[in-house]
Parts: sequence; C-alpha cells; structure tokens
Amino acid sequence: MPARYSDIVSKGLERIRSVGMAAYLDLGAETRSQNRLNRRYIDSIVFEMRILGSTLADTKTELFGQALTVPILAAALCKSRVLERLGPWEIPYLEQIAAGLADAGSMMSTGGVELDELARIVDQGAPVVHIVKPYGDDDLILRHLQRAAELGCVAVGMDIDAFFQEKAWDEEPGPADWALSPKSLDDMRRYCRETTLPFVVKGVLSVHDALRAQDIGASAVVVSFHGGEAIDYAVPILKILPAIREAVPELTIMVDSGFRRGTDVLKALALGADGVGIATLLLIACAADGRAGVKAMIELLAEELRRTMSLVGSPSVAQVDRSALHFVGRESGDTDSSNIFGDDENEKREQ
Amino acid sequence: MPARYSDIVSKGLERIRSVGMAAYLDLGAETRSQNRLNRRYIDSIVFEMRILGSTLADTKTELFGQALTVPILAAALCKSRVLERLGPWEIPYLEQIAAGLADAGSMMSTGGVELDELARIVDQGAPVVHIVKPYGDDDLILRHLQRAAELGCVAVGMDIDAFFQEKAWDEEPGPADWALSPKSLDDMRRYCRETTLPFVVKGVLSVHDALRAQDIGASAVVVSFHGGEAIDYAVPILKILPAIREAVPELTIMVDSGFRRGTDVLKALALGADGVGIATLLLIACAADGRAGVKAMIELLAEELRRTMSLVGSPSVAQVDRSALHFVGRESGDTDSSNIFGDDENEKREQ
Amino acid sequence: MPARYSDIVSKGLERIRSVGMAAYLDLGAETRSQNRLNRRYIDSIVFEMRILGSTLADTKTELFGQALTVPILAAALCKSRVLERLGPWEIPYLEQIAAGLADAGSMMSTGGVELDELARIVDQGAPVVHIVKPYGDDDLILRHLQRAAELGCVAVGMDIDAFFQEKAWDEEPGPADWALSPKSLDDMRRYCRETTLPFVVKGVLSVHDALRAQDIGASAVVVSFHGGEAIDYAVPILKILPAIREAVPELTIMVDSGFRRGTDVLKALALGADGVGIATLLLIACAADGRAGVKAMIELLAEELRRTMSLVGSPSVAQVDRSALHFVGRESGDTDSSNIFGDDENEKREQ
Amino acid sequence: MPARYSDIVSKGLERIRSVGMAAYLDLGAETRSQNRLNRRYIDSIVFEMRILGSTLADTKTELFGQALTVPILAAALCKSRVLERLGPWEIPYLEQIAAGLADAGSMMSTGGVELDELARIVDQGAPVVHIVKPYGDDDLILRHLQRAAELGCVAVGMDIDAFFQEKAWDEEPGPADWALSPKSLDDMRRYCRETTLPFVVKGVLSVHDALRAQDIGASAVVVSFHGGEAIDYAVPILKILPAIREAVPELTIMVDSGFRRGTDVLKALALGADGVGIATLLLIACAADGRAGVKAMIELLAEELRRTMSLVGSPSVAQVDRSALHFVGRESGDTDSSNIFGDDENEKREQ
Repeated sequence: MPARYSDIVSKGLERIRSVGMAAYLDLGAETRSQNRLNRRYIDSIVFEMRILGSTLADTKTELFGQALTVPILAAALCKSRVLERLGPWEIPYLEQIAAGLADAGSMMSTGGVELDELARIVDQGAPVVHIVKPYGDDDLILRHLQRAAELGCVAVGMDIDAFFQEKAWDEEPGPADWALSPKSLDDMRRYCRETTLPFVVKGVLSVHDALRAQDIGASAVVVSFHGGEAIDYAVPILKILPAIREAVPELTIMVDSGFRRGTDVLKALALGADGVGIATLLLIACAADGRAGVKAMIELLAEELRRTMSLVGSPSVAQVDRSALHFVGRESGDTDSSNIFGDDENEKREQ
Repeated sequence: MPARYSDIVSKGLERIRSVGMAAYLDLGAETRSQNRLNRRYIDSIVFEMRILGSTLADTKTELFGQALTVPILAAALCKSRVLERLGPWEIPYLEQIAAGLADAGSMMSTGGVELDELARIVDQGAPVVHIVKPYGDDDLILRHLQRAAELGCVAVGMDIDAFFQEKAWDEEPGPADWALSPKSLDDMRRYCRETTLPFVVKGVLSVHDALRAQDIGASAVVVSFHGGEAIDYAVPILKILPAIREAVPELTIMVDSGFRRGTDVLKALALGADGVGIATLLLIACAADGRAGVKAMIELLAEELRRTMSLVGSPSVAQVDRSALHFVGRESGDTDSSNIFGDDENEKREQ
Repeated sequence: MPARYSDIVSKGLERIRSVGMAAYLDLGAETRSQNRLNRRYIDSIVFEMRILGSTLADTKTELFGQALTVPILAAALCKSRVLERLGPWEIPYLEQIAAGLADAGSMMSTGGVELDELARIVDQGAPVVHIVKPYGDDDLILRHLQRAAELGCVAVGMDIDAFFQEKAWDEEPGPADWALSPKSLDDMRRYCRETTLPFVVKGVLSVHDALRAQDIGASAVVVSFHGGEAIDYAVPILKILPAIREAVPELTIMVDSGFRRGTDVLKALALGADGVGIATLLLIACAADGRAGVKAMIELLAEELRRTMSLVGSPSVAQVDRSALHFVGRESGDTDSSNIFGDDENEKREQ
Repeated sequence: MPARYSDIVSKGLERIRSVGMAAYLDLGAETRSQNRLNRRYIDSIVFEMRILGSTLADTKTELFGQALTVPILAAALCKSRVLERLGPWEIPYLEQIAAGLADAGSMMSTGGVELDELARIVDQGAPVVHIVKPYGDDDLILRHLQRAAELGCVAVGMDIDAFFQEKAWDEEPGPADWALSPKSLDDMRRYCRETTLPFVVKGVLSVHDALRAQDIGASAVVVSFHGGEAIDYAVPILKILPAIREAVPELTIMVDSGFRRGTDVLKALALGADGVGIATLLLIACAADGRAGVKAMIELLAEELRRTMSLVGSPSVAQVDRSALHFVGRESGDTDSSNIFGDDENEKREQ
C-alpha cells in the first residue's frame, strides 16, 4: 500500500512536536491573520465536475524550460529552525529535500543558503531556482547571482517581501543572520541585467508590483506573502492572483503561502498560476521520512491533482481554466477543512 | 407514541459507535470539506410560511412510472462496511432496507451489489433502480444492465463519479473490490442503447454533464458527489441544482449527498429535484432497528415534509416551487443545525 | 440599586435549571435552526448614533387604543411546562405575569388558557389580547371570541401557525391537550365577523399571509414563528418584516420570537413593527421573582429602549425609522451576543 | 532584545488578572456586541503589498499644530478602576501614562479628571487634549474649558456619547461620580465659542453628527463609541468612517474604540482618520511597566505601522490612501486574530 498524505503529515508533525517546534510551522507577522484568511479564501472555492467525456489527466508541465512531472515545486527554502532541531542529519536536510524533489520529477528552490550549500543542493539533480535575499551588501547579491548561473540553476531571483525584514509568529525578525535592506528599482534592474538566467521577483502581492517586476526585466513573479512573515493581514493569494494574471499575461507566475492539497494547487492553476510552491509540507515530509518522505509527498499531491483535474475535465495543465470553479464563501465559510496543524498554536518554542 | 427521528438516530449511532464505525458515516475525499460546505449551503436556505388557505399537503409522487408515497428514495446502496461490522445479520441488511422501503411506499436503489443479491433485494417488493459501477470489464456492465431488466428493476444507470475511483475519509479508495475505469461517451451511449429501461446518469455535478447525459440518451440524472467520495471541495448540491434543472427541463432529476431532514427534501424539490436520495440515514435507521427502523425513518421524513409543505402552502409535490425560499447565508451562516453525528469525527476506524 | 437585566436572567435561569427545564426555553421544530438564524439576523443589524440635538426619548405608545408605557407586550402566553414545574404557585404564574405587566404599564396576551383563567388574568388590570387556538371544535373557538369580548379584552385573534400542530425541541407536539386543525379562509372570515374586537392573525411569516389576513378582515398581524415551534428553518422575523410592513401599511404589526433586549425591540420598530412580544423573558423573569420580576424586566427593557432611542436621535416611537440602521451581517456575523441560555442546550428534560 | 508587543500585553494582563479586573478591559453596554463586531470589521480588511520602489516609511504627523512621531495618541483617559486596583502608585498612573507618551513623542488626552490632576498631567510634557464630560453643572464645564487653555492644553472638547450615561460590561453606568446630562446645540455652540482652543466633538458615529459638529464650530471629531460603553450594537468604526471623512473633509478626524495593532492604525488612516486613539492598550502597558511600558507600547505600534506602511508603499502618513486595501469579510471572516484578552470574558469582578 502506498503512503497516505495523512500518514506522512501525522508522522512529520509528531516528530516536530517532539522537539517543541510545531509553532514555527505557522509563521505570521504580528497576528498570523494572513494565514487564517488565506486558508479560508482557498476553502471558499469549490468545483463542479465534468466527467462525461473526460479521461485521466496528465499533470506534466514545464517551468523555465524544465520538464516537470507536476506544477508543484519547493518554495524558496532556507535553513530551517524546525529541521535543525530534529538533527543532526546524516545527509543535510536541504539536500534530502532536493533529492526527493528530483526523485519525484519536481523542482527545487532555495532562499537563504550559503553558496557551498547551494552547490550541494544543485548536485541532487532537480532543477534549482535560487532566490537571493536582499542583502545590504550588494556584492554578496551579485556573487550569488553569478554563482547560481555557474552551478546550473535554471533561474535566479530576489524575495522583495524581505526588504523591510520578515517577522515570524514570535514577533521577532525571522532569519536574523543577514542584514537586509530595501532595493531601489535601479538596483533591481541591475540584478536582472547582471544575470544570464531568467529573473524571478518573489513576494509580489499587487498588480502594482507585478507591473514593476515586468518593467525591470523580470520574467517571472511569485505571488506570495512569505508564508505569513511579510505582512500582517495580507490579502489572500488567490484573491489577488487573477488580477495579476491579467496584468502580466506574458510573465511566468508562481504562487506560494499556505498551499496544502492537490485541490489547492488546481485552484491556483485555474486562477492563473503556472506553478505552486510548497514549503511547510516539505519540511513536514522531510521530518517524517527524509528524502523518501519528500518524494512521496510530491507524488501524493500529484495524484490528488491528477484525479481532480480528471473529475473537472481538464486533461492537461494547459487546459485548466476557471470555468469549473464556484465560490461559496458568501454563503458559508469553511474554516478548518485543511488545517493540518491541530492545536499546536499555543505550543511555545523551546529555546 | 410513534418513534421520534432523534430516537432512531441516537439508537443507530450508538450501535455504530459501539463497533467503532461512526467515522465511516461521514465519507469524504481528502478533506471532507464537501460535506461541511454542502450542509452549510442547505442550512442557509429558509422558508416563509403561507398558511392562510393552506390545507394538509399530500406527499405522493411518481418516479419511473412508480407511485411513491413520498419523493424520498434510497441513494444507490452498496455493501456497507458499517453494517457489515454490526453483523452477522439474520436477514441481510440490504434486504431489510429494501423491505422497510417497500413497507413505507418508497423506492430502493442499489449500487455495487452482486446480481444474486440484487435479485433478493428486488424480491422485497419496493421498485428498484440499479446503478451499475463503471467496471473495467464491459461485459460485466452489460450483464448487470440486462439482468436488472429481467429482474424487474424500474431503471438502471451508472455512477460516473466513480470513473476515477472514489476516496473515503481515510484517503483510501472506498469500495476496493472492483477495478473501475472511465467510460467514453460512446461507451455511455451503448449502455443506454443496450437496455430497455430508463437510463440514469448518477454523479452529475455540472450543467456540462447534465447536457451530455441528455445527449447520450439518459432519461434521468442524479445530482450527487457520492456522499463526499467523488471530489474534494465539491460545489454544494443545492447550489448547482437550479442551473441543471434549467438546462435539462425534460429529464428526471434526483439528488443525493447529505440530505437529512424533511426540510432538506423540500428545499431540493423547490430547487428542481424530482426525488431525493438518502443513504446515511438508512444505514443508521437499519442499525437502529432493521426493516422497522427504515420504515419508521421514511415515515418520519414524510411527516416532516408533509407538515412543512402545508406550512409553506404547497398542497402537492407538483406544486412545490422556490417562491417560498429565502436565503440567509449572506447574513448569518448556520453551521451545525443538522449535524447528527456529534463529535465522532476523530473516532478512528478499528480494523 | 435597581435590578440589573443580567441578575434577573441569571436568577430565573438558575431556578429553571434547578428543576431541569431549561431546554424547554429554546423551543424549535425539528432542528431549532430557526432560533439560531433569527438571533444571528437580529445581531447583524447595528446602529449609528445621532446624539447632537437629541433629547431623552419617550417610549410611550398605543396599541388597540390602549396607552402603553412601552411598545413591549407579552407574546400569547399559554400554560407553561417550565413554570408548572417550579410550582406550586400561591398566586398562579400567569396572573403574576399579567399583574407585573400591569404594574409596568405594558400589555398582556394569552394563548391556550381556559376561560376562567382568562377572566382572572384580565382582572389583573393590564389590557389583554386573547389569541384563540385553532381548535378542531369551532364552537369552542366562538365561545372564546365571545367571552374575551365580555371580559373586556382589547383584541382577539388566532395563531394560524398552529394549524398543522406545533413541535417543540423534543420533536413532540407542544401543547398536546387540544385537537387543532387548519381553518379555511371562510372560517377565518367568520371569526373576524363574529367578534366586535379587533382581530389579530398571529403567525404571519410572508407577504402572502399578511395580504390574506387583511383580506379576511383582520386589523393586526403578529409576524412570528411561534418561538420556533411552527416551522423548521423559518425565515428570520426581521428579514421578512420590512416587506410585510410595505404590503399592509394600514395594519397594526406586532412581532415576536426571539426578542431579548431593548436594542432588539428598537430594530423591530425601525423595520416596521408597532409592538414587540416577549415570552421567554417573561417566563424567566417570573421564575426569578414572580410579579416583581416581570415588572422589573419590562422596566429594564424600557430603559434600554429609551436610552438607545435617545442615542439614535428618535425622540418618540412614532419617529423611529430605519435610517439609523446599518447591516454588518455580510462582513462579520455576530453569533452569540445575546445568547442568554448558556450551555443548556444539552440539558435533558426530566419527566 | 527590545520588548515585544506580546510580552508587554502578557505581563500587563497577568497583573490585571491578579487583581480580578480583566473583565473591566472589555467594556460594553448591555451585550458587548459592539466590540466583537468592531473587531471583526477591522479584521476583514487586508492589504496588498507595493514594495518595488518603496522606501522605509516615516510615521511623523501633526495634530492640533503639534509634531508627533506617530499618529497614535491616548483616547481620553479617566480615572481607571482597573489601575486603581493595582495601586497604590508611587507616581499616579495617569501621570506615568502621560510621561510615557511624552517619551515616545505621542499625545495625551484626558477625560474625567479633576483640574489639579489635569495640571500635573500637562506637566509631563506631552501635548494634551482635554475632553470635558457633559456635566449637568454648566459652570463646571466652562471652568474646565478655561483651565485647560490656561494650562496649555492643545485642544478641548466634549464626549457627547455620555449625554445619556455610559454603561459598562456589568450594566451599571461607568463613571458614576458625575451627574451627566444631554446638551443642546446651543450649549455646544457656546462651549466652542467660549474657548480659544480647537474644539473636539468626541463620540461621533454618523454623518448626521459630524455635520452638526462642524456646524456648531468644532474643528475636530472623534469617531468613537466609547470603547463599547455608549451604545449596544454600534456600527463598526471603520464601516462608518469613510462616509464621515467624505462629509466633513475640512475637519480633523480621530478614531478610537478597539484599535490594537499597527495594522489597525494603518487601516484607520487609509479610511480617513488623522489620528488613532488607544486606551485599553495604554492601561495594559502601564499595568505592565508604568511609564516605560507606555513608551515601549507606542514605539512598538509605531514600528508595526512604519513597517506596514513601507510594505504597502506609503512613504508618509499624508500619502496613505485606501487603494492598497481589500475587503475579505464577505468571503471569510476572521474572528479572533487580534483578541488579546484570552478567556477573561467570564472573569467576575471582585468588589
């Protein structure tokens, strides 16, 4: 019998709870409202079925010229306080995740990692998108951009939502080990120019920024509020996505922040996304079973996606559209359907 | 004193809990969101009263040429893991249910049952609609269609929402004992052609499929998401029903999935249904008191329906329309009013 | 220090709980959804303040030619299972309630009471509206209509929402001691004709019935769903009230079912009511302190009403209008703000 | 490490709970519905981000000619039952609050205080707005207005929402030590005329009163329902604010009642406020750490505000507008995201 989603999640959460780190899975500047509101918005979208004449769907897609088995990839992963605590790891956890993604035919993405760690991650075989932090030291940024290209990354970018520091659930700036600073439009243009790779602007949450991202030369944006760390009371991802899709029809659009199930992924695709990033689920899957857990998680999400695509009559990722979506938020308001965290909210971190 | 609805439900649930099977009553692919959202949608519809000049209503109706005391029938019943566990049964539970329906003047419907079991069910005297699974083996399908006609079933059909497998709450395919597969439109046309009985397409949840069902020659559809097993985040039945009614005015339309009370039935009739299928309630009633419990449940639902029809001024099923309905979902959002399951959601199945 | 609302309610509920009868305070056919939805609808209406230039408001009004200190009256009271259980009463509880209402300058209303009891109630001094049950025995109805006039009642009427029996929370018909039956329009016309008093149709919950009530000669309607016993999933009183007010501008309109606070009363007045009936609060107040409790309850509601009228700038009942109302139901949905019952829902009646 | 918002709140609440006074922090006439509804309305507003091209924002502003570091000030503070109970205070708590506000570059505002206490408060160095109660004794009002000017207050005013008495959560009039009474428009005009200072009308909750405030000569209004004590079921502050802003574009508009976070402040500014008053947070901060706690609280709110302004691309208070706001209330309805009180609602006051 293949692994079940709930089994992987349960096992991963159990291990994370055992080291007192579950609260770190639900990040969120100040009040964490953004994650609740985002989840509720996802939950308010439902599907009609279009089965007659439908065949088993194919989830294959392509991002940055790379063939992927499924439009699901890692959201830019950094050093994780959660997984650190579960260590020591014989094989470093970021490499295990990269390897599991490679096994599943998915794509890796990195955030705040050292360049030597980046090299080892690329070695695992999955295509890698490297998102560079807005370091105060501009040379460091340029070194990252250059080295990423040398290592064979398929794209680079920057998470602009860290310009003004990130804040985790405990109201302290998240990754405290770098000095970050806001970048001007000219800075951003230069980063785009200095790399031969497609440039990704991560942390776009408005038409305003999507248009500017296009204007400075980016070829892709990630609609994201950084899993909650960027801004309190963020507009839900799927609420703002359609307007962004319409504003920049030529750009590749990825989303992340709070996506948990194959149905969540399908909703994002239907509303304009080309790929969906996940981070928390990968941390949990890695906590559960390392590389094998990551591979299994991607495959389970792919199976859910394929089955749901088949049921709504979308035979391929390119043929997904929003005509099968309905919106029930105004009548009801499903609040907890995909809350996989249980009652850990009050769990305190242990220092 | 006649039995009360709450007494039957309490007794049935108590017995089902005693064998650890209550969680199996609330099925649901992946997150079970569809059942919650569906219930909330039903709960957001309310009635005005039209009493002056009203008389005691009559709930009689006709489906597939059969006179029924009430437009409530069994949703296609299969072998039940829940009732199996309560056995051994001196008289098999599906036959007890069929007999109870016959006693109450209602209609039976069967799903994944063997042909010899089907024969014994038909013998109980209620008219039977036999829904054939989309078996991978086409000959098996045709044998079912032919045998159903020989036995005197009043209609046959297929549950298309099982084309891509069903998933129960435990994220495993529900009835694992058949190999199912999607059928082409040509396959479906052939099934309609090969039977002399009215053909029912079960699992329609869009205008798209309702039109195609009509196009392939079906004379009836069942608007359903298979009690939750078909698709996660399904659009609520009563939300999609009016558009389907408008699209295929000539077809018989039945609904099922989550209907629990006489008022639920009246809402479905008002929004376009000709009949309302129930399954979970029949399992509970049968668990409570076998054939007698099933009979009592249908009669209690009929009494609720008759009383509510009288209060809204609809003297007959044919005269029910939506003009007495109001929608409160936007202002409030009653979430738990007909939750008959209590807090069993976390009850684990015992294998 | 004068009594506080919360003190009276606490004391009354405590006494009612002590005899195991609290569940009987929240009546409701089948699922009790109507009371929850009705409360939520009331709670979704809010006020702006208009203080500058405002003076202390006057709550005086007139109903059926009677001067009242406040547009709050008893909803038609019957023999109460709740108060019976608290007995024996030295002075019968219905007389204590009538006396308390007289003390406060309010109005009494009676439902299923015997004629000799009615006489003693009238003797307490408050004006009385006598609502006659739709007894199967027409002569009994006519005797009630005639005797009420002889005793000096100010109006008579009939609760049409009992035509098809009432159902309490325990799913058994509420007042089981009478045989009730639906009345034809001709019957209703005759009752109006046979009495010299204004005729009140109680249990109107649609424009349809309001127009028919006017048509048969009634001079007043009570918009009500009988505290929940009439119909499951009833449209909220304040949702249907404005349309009824518009349809029958010449009729006196009263409301009841779920009104609990002075602000609830003001909302009803603003949306078209001339008077607001309360029943549950009177039972609780009588349980707390008999006649004195009833008087205090009316006075406290009057004080709340007067203060809130002053704050919204309505100097008199006649000058209340809906321009100070706003609707927040679509944004939020306050669910429990006036739930005075606490967690008694699961309290079981003791036979 | 700098103090965290949650640490100050936790510490303050812990001290307040230790003397049994937490229930007094959540005031509210009759049902306290207004505070719940107000919070939910605030929570239903979310932000898009506009980061590209944004720089670190500046929160400086000016009110009544005074330069402030942030558009956050004290809502008119009175003698506090909560802080009294925590005494005796070596330095009186109102002076500690005023001093903390001065340290942080914010503004003080006073309500029901004696004139000698007012003098000592002004001495702490923060600019002071003195709101005079609508005392029945008109000479007392005029003495307050005159003395405030002599002491160097920057504005005076009156809280009109106390015209008809205030009611706290325990349903007793809040500050019971004054006899208050409604004032006529002529009275109000005279108060405006008699003072050389800008006059503030506090407790405006409608366009009606905003226009009248302007008409009598006020130069500022405070949109407020007095933290809940003024009226039950008050319209939420941010729901009524935009219409008031549009009606009196020339007036200074402040808001208070239920503002808790930097994001709350930004929402108020975006919808038309020039300044946001806080009271409960100051009581908690003072309970936690006196003057230093108050200073830290203002600085933490300022930091949240500055960071969020930066993320939405508003470089200065003057450039904040509502174009970055979205409304999610209709889809979801975040109910508890900024509930800082935990489960004290049932805590009983100890006399």
